[in-house]
Parts: sequence; structure tokens; C-alpha cells
Amino acid sequence: MTERAAPGDQFVQSLARGLEVIVSFDDEHPEMTLAQVATRTGYSRATARRFLHTLVELGYMRTDGKTFSLTPQVLRLGTAYLSGLGLPQIAQPHLERLSARLGESTSAAVLDGTDIVYIARVATRRIMSVGIAVGTRFPAYATSMGRVLLAALDGDDLEAYLSAADLRPLTPRTIHDPAALRREIDHVRAQGWALVDQELERGLTSLAAPVVDGTGRTVAALNVSTATVDGTPQIAAATTPLLESAAAIGADLAAQDVTG
Amino acid sequence: MTERAAPGDQFVQSLARGLEVIVSFDDEHPEMTLAQVATRTGYSRATARRFLHTLVELGYMRTDGKTFSLTPQVLRLGTAYLSGLGLPQIAQPHLERLSARLGESTSAAVLDGTDIVYIARVATRRIMSVGIAVGTRFPAYATSMGRVLLAALDGDDLEAYLSAADLRPLTPRTIHDPAALRREIDHVRAQGWALVDQELERGLTSLAAPVVDGTGRTVAALNVSTATVDGTPQIAAATTPLLESAAAIGADLAAQDVTG
Repeated sequence: MTERAAPGDQFVQSLARGLEVIVSFDDEHPEMTLAQVATRTGYSRATARRFLHTLVELGYMRTDGKTFSLTPQVLRLGTAYLSGLGLPQIAQPHLERLSARLGESTSAAVLDGTDIVYIARVATRRIMSVGIAVGTRFPAYATSMGRVLLAALDGDDLEAYLSAADLRPLTPRTIHDPAALRREIDHVRAQGWALVDQELERGLTSLAAPVVDGTGRTVAALNVSTATVDGTPQIAAATTPLLESAAAIGADLAAQDVTG
Repeated sequence: MTERAAPGDQFVQSLARGLEVIVSFDDEHPEMTLAQVATRTGYSRATARRFLHTLVELGYMRTDGKTFSLTPQVLRLGTAYLSGLGLPQIAQPHLERLSARLGESTSAAVLDGTDIVYIARVATRRIMSVGIAVGTRFPAYATSMGRVLLAALDGDDLEAYLSAADLRPLTPRTIHDPAALRREIDHVRAQGWALVDQELERGLTSLAAPVVDGTGRTVAALNVSTATVDGTPQIAAATTPLLESAAAIGADLAAQDVTG
């Protein structure tokens, strides 16, 4: 979903490779030797060495002479996006109030490719099997925030999403048939919010609403998630507070656009 | 505080420049034209164009043909560090329990250069003038987590920190004299925790303890922060729960090292 391609002679191969070296480090590979980085990236040892040592010199990587690992400075790259967005700072106090009001975890997310990506979160207690933090990604089609964000796409972009996404039943309840998803997304668009009950993970129910900026554009989704107790009535009571918080964030965004 | 420099002929200038282009985007400059990026980075327009278009092609940047902005994909770079660290995932449920137990915000941070950097956070309500999220940085000397992390440095590293840090009174209460800081850090090391009362910001009191892994190394700091009401007695009651949570995270880390 990149908007335009660089002409071949404009493409900076070294930048692409350096970023590949960074993302080759993950929870399975937090520390790697030069040989391991070369294997993971498919670069020669000489190439991998140049990138690793450049990242060390720039402060993004550290080494004990044998193994390499990323430093917290790497967070500056993600922070560049988040602080530029403005939205997390604006949304955070609203999430905190909504979470306190309902006693449940609240989050905000945006669409990136076929995933939603968390950009803010206030957690009251752990209910999911995996930890959620800023930067966590889930497939959009199986989440309440994803449904709200997909409902804001125009027809062509929605079809492009449905073609690109790997639609699978993540639980027995996951809507993963394209036609059924299109109907559900139409329903979400009409009612202005989405309820997803145990389609991403058993025991997890989530309610989401769109955050609309001063120009009428949906810029993010806001959600409340809770442990599934005895069906949906409990979380349904959160609809009004959620819609109020989403509207308040939208109003803050509009005010910022006017004053900023 | 980088560990070793790359030999000159090993340094990949293009990678350094591409990363500079990413971090040239911030809350003051969330969207820039090619000319603005060239001005901010000091690169020629031709150079800036090549890096911007490469980042667009890689999906880290988007453009409407006139202005450029980062995409959420940039968060993957920071996530590579956080998930590799393992610590945020291990710490998060402990932070949530501690926050619920005390009714206060809890955080974990590591040292990066002269700053602490937040790697996990559970916020109950907004008490600081600035929003805190994963990736937020503060000068180590004026924070409780920083004092705990500085207390874990060996003598040479602490002196290197004191030389490099820009020690200034952030409030009238900030300890910023090197000799006084050394004494306070000795005190923190001896008692095993740090209390900082309105040295970073008026109205904010914070208590921190070290998180020690299975090898006895301090790998992070854990804190509880609260609005300053009538001095320190209230937060002092949080010392035992905080130390218990820090020990529990350390035990989980040690168990992971054994099983992983």
C-alpha cells in the first residue's frame, strides 16, 4: 500500500539493507553474531559487518565484540512517527478517562497495510494471551478497531484490502469469508461502531468507534476491550461512553487543526 | 556511549543519512515537503529526494506527491528492539498488578546514553504535564528510575555519565551538583531504592527499584509515580509492594534464562 515507487536509479539499496538488519532482530533473535545476521538477512558477512558496525557507530546497536543487539535508541525511530502523528498525545488522556469510567482497557489504533497497529493504550488488567503495547499489530478483519477502519475505506481500497489480507478463522467465530466481511463492514459503517465477540481470541470481546478529524476523515479507531463473561450485554453498555470519547478526541483534533 | 567505532571505510553513509531523514520528522514537523526535509537534514534536494523515495518504496514513508510523512510501519523498527528485549512483555503483567494494587501509574525504564527511556507503562491517570509513553525520555539524574540505574553503574561509567550529562535544576529541588548527586546515588545503592520528590517536575513524586536478572545484573528500573500531596509518607508505603514486584520480574527473567 505504498503510494508510489522510486525510479530504479533513485533507490538507495544501502538504506533498505540497513533497515533489514534492524528488523532482523526480534524476540527470537535479540542477540546475534555477525554470522547469524548474515544468514537471517541473506547478505554476505562483509556486507552484514559494514551495516552492523555503522549501526554501532550511530548508537542504534551495541556489541560486546562477538554478539550484536539493538539499543533503546532504536525507539527514537518509532517515536518520530508517534510524536509526528500528534494523535497519541491527544488521545491518551481521553483513553485514561474512558478506562477509569468503565474499568476496562482502552486503546487507539491505525491501519497499516492489512494490520491494525496500536498507537496508544491504557491497560487495566491482562485479559489477552499476548501482551499488547504501542506497535502491536493484529489482522484488521478480526478486530473491532480494524472493522471500523475498514468501514472508512472507499470501495476500491476495501477491495484491495480483501484481496491482500490473509483471511483465516482465528477462532471458530472469526468472520473470514470476503462476502460476509463486506456485509459486516457495511453494517459497521451504518451503525457507526463495531462489536467483535471472540473473533480474534476466545474470551475477548471488543467494541470500537471511529475517531474523525475536523475534515471528516477517519484517522484512527478507539476501543474498549473486556473479558467475555456471559455474552455481549455488558460491553454494549460501553457504547455511549466510547462514542463520547471518540467524539471528544475528534473535537480536540479539529481544535488543534484550527489553532495549529 | 557506543561501544566501538566502525573503521572509516566500513561506514555506510547512506544508512546514516536515511535514518537522519526518518528522525527529522517529529511533532513540530509531522509532514514536510522535499525542500523542508533538505533544509532540516542539510542534504541537497537530490539526496533528500532519493532517501524519501526509497523510504516510500519500502513502506516507511507516504507522500501525496507534495508532502511526505512517516507511516506506522516505522514502529516496526522500535518493536524490533522491544520484542528482542523480552523485558517489556515480562514486566507488563507485573506493572498492571502493581498499578491495580496501589491505584497509581507504574513504569519500567532502561538507561540510554544520559537518558532513561520508558519501555513499559501502565497509566492510571495523568499527573505529569507531558504525556509519557514507551519511548519517552527524561534526563536520568532527575528521576527515581535514573537514580536506581545510575547506582548500578560501576565507578568509571558513573563518572562518564556525570561528565556527559547536562546537569541543570529542572525544579528548585533538583539535585544537580555532581558531588551531591554522587552522595545521593551512593545512598540509593545502599538502601536499594530511590525516592525523587519534585526534582523532575513540581507536583510529581516517584519511587523506583532495580530489576535484577538471574546473573545479578540490573537490567531495568521499575517505578510508581504519584501526585505529591503532603510530602512523602503516602508513596513511602508503596516501597514494599514495589520491591516485591521488582523481585517478581527479576525471578521471571531468571526463569526465562534457565528455560530459554
